Amino acid sequence: MGNNENTWILTAQCPSCLGTVDVVTRFLAENSCYIVDIQSFDDRELNLFCIRVQFRPLNDEFNSDVFEQTFQARANKFDMTWSLTEPNHKTRVAIMVSKYDHCLNDLLYRYRTKALPINIAVIISNHPDLEALAEWHGIDYYHLPITAETKPQQEKRVLEVVQQYTCELVVLARYMQVLSADMCSKLSGKAINIHHSLLPGFKGAKPYHQAWDKGVKLVGATAHYVNDDLDEGPIITQGVQAVGHSHYPEDLVAKGQDIESQTLARAIKYHIEKRVFLFGSRTVVFAD
Amino acid sequence: MGNNENTWILTAQCPSCLGTVDVVTRFLAENSCYIVDIQSFDDRELNLFCIRVQFRPLNDEFNSDVFEQTFQARANKFDMTWSLTEPNHKTRVAIMVSKYDHCLNDLLYRYRTKALPINIAVIISNHPDLEALAEWHGIDYYHLPITAETKPQQEKRVLEVVQQYTCELVVLARYMQVLSADMCSKLSGKAINIHHSLLPGFKGAKPYHQAWDKGVKLVGATAHYVNDDLDEGPIITQGVQAVGHSHYPEDLVAKGQDIESQTLARAIKYHIEKRVFLFGSRTVVFAD
Amino acid sequence: MGNNENTWILTAQCPSCLGTVDVVTRFLAENSCYIVDIQSFDDRELNLFCIRVQFRPLNDEFNSDVFEQTFQARANKFDMTWSLTEPNHKTRVAIMVSKYDHCLNDLLYRYRTKALPINIAVIISNHPDLEALAEWHGIDYYHLPITAETKPQQEKRVLEVVQQYTCELVVLARYMQVLSADMCSKLSGKAINIHHSLLPGFKGAKPYHQAWDKGVKLVGATAHYVNDDLDEGPIITQGVQAVGHSHYPEDLVAKGQDIESQTLARAIKYHIEKRVFLFGSRTVVFAD
Amino acid sequence: MGNNENTWILTAQCPSCLGTVDVVTRFLAENSCYIVDIQSFDDRELNLFCIRVQFRPLNDEFNSDVFEQTFQARANKFDMTWSLTEPNHKTRVAIMVSKYDHCLNDLLYRYRTKALPINIAVIISNHPDLEALAEWHGIDYYHLPITAETKPQQEKRVLEVVQQYTCELVVLARYMQVLSADMCSKLSGKAINIHHSLLPGFKGAKPYHQAWDKGVKLVGATAHYVNDDLDEGPIITQGVQAVGHSHYPEDLVAKGQDIESQTLARAIKYHIEKRVFLFGSRTVVFAD
Repeated sequence: MGNNENTWILTAQCPSCLGTVDVVTRFLAENSCYIVDIQSFDDRELNLFCIRVQFRPLNDEFNSDVFEQTFQARANKFDMTWSLTEPNHKTRVAIMVSKYDHCLNDLLYRYRTKALPINIAVIISNHPDLEALAEWHGIDYYHLPITAETKPQQEKRVLEVVQQYTCELVVLARYMQVLSADMCSKLSGKAINIHHSLLPGFKGAKPYHQAWDKGVKLVGATAHYVNDDLDEGPIITQGVQAVGHSHYPEDLVAKGQDIESQTLARAIKYHIEKRVFLFGSRTVVFAD
Repeated sequence: MGNNENTWILTAQCPSCLGTVDVVTRFLAENSCYIVDIQSFDDRELNLFCIRVQFRPLNDEFNSDVFEQTFQARANKFDMTWSLTEPNHKTRVAIMVSKYDHCLNDLLYRYRTKALPINIAVIISNHPDLEALAEWHGIDYYHLPITAETKPQQEKRVLEVVQQYTCELVVLARYMQVLSADMCSKLSGKAINIHHSLLPGFKGAKPYHQAWDKGVKLVGATAHYVNDDLDEGPIITQGVQAVGHSHYPEDLVAKGQDIESQTLARAIKYHIEKRVFLFGSRTVVFAD
Repeated sequence: MGNNENTWILTAQCPSCLGTVDVVTRFLAENSCYIVDIQSFDDRELNLFCIRVQFRPLNDEFNSDVFEQTFQARANKFDMTWSLTEPNHKTRVAIMVSKYDHCLNDLLYRYRTKALPINIAVIISNHPDLEALAEWHGIDYYHLPITAETKPQQEKRVLEVVQQYTCELVVLARYMQVLSADMCSKLSGKAINIHHSLLPGFKGAKPYHQAWDKGVKLVGATAHYVNDDLDEGPIITQGVQAVGHSHYPEDLVAKGQDIESQTLARAIKYHIEKRVFLFGSRTVVFAD
Repeated sequence: MGNNENTWILTAQCPSCLGTVDVVTRFLAENSCYIVDIQSFDDRELNLFCIRVQFRPLNDEFNSDVFEQTFQARANKFDMTWSLTEPNHKTRVAIMVSKYDHCLNDLLYRYRTKALPINIAVIISNHPDLEALAEWHGIDYYHLPITAETKPQQEKRVLEVVQQYTCELVVLARYMQVLSADMCSKLSGKAINIHHSLLPGFKGAKPYHQAWDKGVKLVGATAHYVNDDLDEGPIITQGVQAVGHSHYPEDLVAKGQDIESQTLARAIKYHIEKRVFLFGSRTVVFAD
């Protein structure tokens, strides 16, 4: 946002106790860091605290290395895990797709117009179809076909590519393949999937067909982190739209594309702006 | 709606075949009935047709008995089931409640301001709590307590009251009791229930607790006809709202009341305006 | 929609009187045309009627020329203007843009994936920026710069291009130029514009700045037909989204892009599916 | 919310400068006050800061008088205006109505079920119609008729009643009278009005008729603070809903009632939870 240009982001998480806000805000004040935005949450069930602060150093000689070393000493007392994100940092992203290209097209548009400040480093697909689209955007494209037999090797290769391009985030933009438990585990918390239903309703394959079969009047999409149980990872955000009796499964598929694209893009935005915290099987998401 | 005052409603349903619209519209034209609104639907899977027409007789001597007898002969050729609803007809309704009164309060308001043109003939509850509210509105109130042992007798008594008050529709306005299979069967298609989740997600008890447990970012309500499988009856309409990490189950319960009330009222409106058709386990609902 | 494949569309409009529906439906029945969907509306203020029917000829020898000639005789008695649209007809469209490309990008995506069954014949812009995008899609691009002095000539040239490419519809996809009264008049009813506010609020330039200045909590977009009074043409559809105090004008500009794109695409869909009827300064839009 | 029971609320506003957050958070930490929720905002145009903190004293001997006196000294250095709200404080409210009772009915329901923790001290109306409703809730009702001639005296009497009942907030729940400039000025920032349009569109009388006349596809409601320019006070929140060609003005009036009621109730909730800050002609509203 306009007001947030050139701001650093400090996020932290620790067990709830007195002083968790103060240890952060006092340090920032002492270091002439001006707080532009602050949000915190305490979960009464998990007894867990998290905080997100956007700040602007008023002192030109602000040194992030010194900041980090000094703050670590204080954070230790609260058993706090934390991270500092520099202004205009662009997260390196690997996108995985199959043949459906509506989410990919949407992300590429937001990427090339800088609406979404990410760096799409590589696109990986089990099909060759979308290579031209990648090429037009100047992005490397890996066609890694998959069969039941070659799944372990293919997944290994995917992870190698992700590593080779030093990607911080993997986005499953309608990849349409069930990841192995091992793959899920390795991507846990580092990969975002878009599922075309209002999870936990209509898990698994062909959710629009399931929705039509049940005669629901609302359908939606769910962006969630990948964890070891597919379609059950922590939900980041969901979108919804009204449908009616005249919409057959193929109509729902067509109508759902906008909601899927927007929901996925919104989840990525929250993630790269460090608004999302994992709290067990749920997420905390600070509003923008 | 303003345009629809003093209009009759003709609804019909039959197997799909050539001439199903024509048999209705030609008859209306021949009888000087002016069509204000017409909507039809054909289900390609079930090969089933339905139509809803609002019309205004231009002839002062319009006689509905004659209309019905004459139309029946034509409808027979199409194996058509149909009904004619007179202008300003007020459906007689029995409302069943437990202790939660938000849906009841909402319906009573719409009833007394005539926003919902129904005739609330009687209120039935397994608790005495809401009698004063009923009394202020001048509506008879039956307190029919229920236990596991007395369930069969209580349900029998409920049906007697519904019959005694010649109710055409039973509304379960957060009644909070699981109806027996027998009761469901007897009320099938004649009773509307409001469930506080986006069915088929979170069936059964405490859906807001289930929703919180899963960390969903949207919750909702579903109004559906009662059939022999509770929480599985044909869906009429659904409502939804965004929620976040800061909402505990009790917050969802509180936040959900508006959506539940509105969704239930909307379903009743669709039903009494003859907009809803049963198509197997689904519904056709013509927009207003 | 799935059910509507291979259906013809008949639309008609005339003064309200008895038999307007019957003249259409009887003719279709007599000609073995199966009605898949029918919707009508009567405006009580304007005393004006319109109808839209989707039908499927059951007779293989259906001949649209014969249909049109025969129907014309009947339509004449009702002073009815009407049109017949063949299955899978693709409206030829000219898109006009400036430098903002979010609406264009969205339309190009829906065009190349056939989500929007249009034929984008040509793109016209007063800037050269988006030529590469047009080229990648294999669409001719006309860069027609404009200044206060050259406005009459430029508009004349635009109309020539539209005619040369035999476009039935002109889409102003954030063209950012005020059309002359003469141009508006020539495009009246044949051009759709997207305005980035909830018209009639915030007419004219920089509506997001106006919205921020007023501190509104909702912003939106309006797709409307061009008529002789810019920003006042008949509204087809509108979209809306919530905003807050933290959104500065530039944030609203960024946030508004999705709503603008979707609202414009929806309006085009309604238009090409013949769902929109002009009723004076307002529109009738039959739901899908 | 569940997590927020028994929490104190500290709100503060001052010119933006380094240390505005720290002066609050450090004081709370030093006084063993546990922060449950914190949100801040800096307006770059007005160079104005505000903060809202919910906290729970961990020390049983927490004394708010001591807290206030001690904090004042620190706040002075920042030219900070601030206020402390005790747990479970119920704002005393005067409701003004005319004959429309949908907003009143909604507020009374939320009041008697404690969904909205307010204390409705008195209801004032220029008509006698709603006295029975007030009486059933045990709330004093003042029927203060108004004519062009008696307006000054009537408004004087209204203010006397508001003062007599020590009301902190006046809610204009469809009062339908234009307040005098003097009255507006006296109620500035202390009164919330509900206007049945998406202000600044359709100011003044009969907004639904204006909306119909323009053929808009969305209508809404705006809750705003009263200031000296009627229909122009700072907006707190807005609601919206889709409408279509079949809705005549009287339909819009009927359809709008739900949105008006909910929007007004939401604005009151934000106000009493101290989420709203006046920033010139706009508001800052921290999300719940």
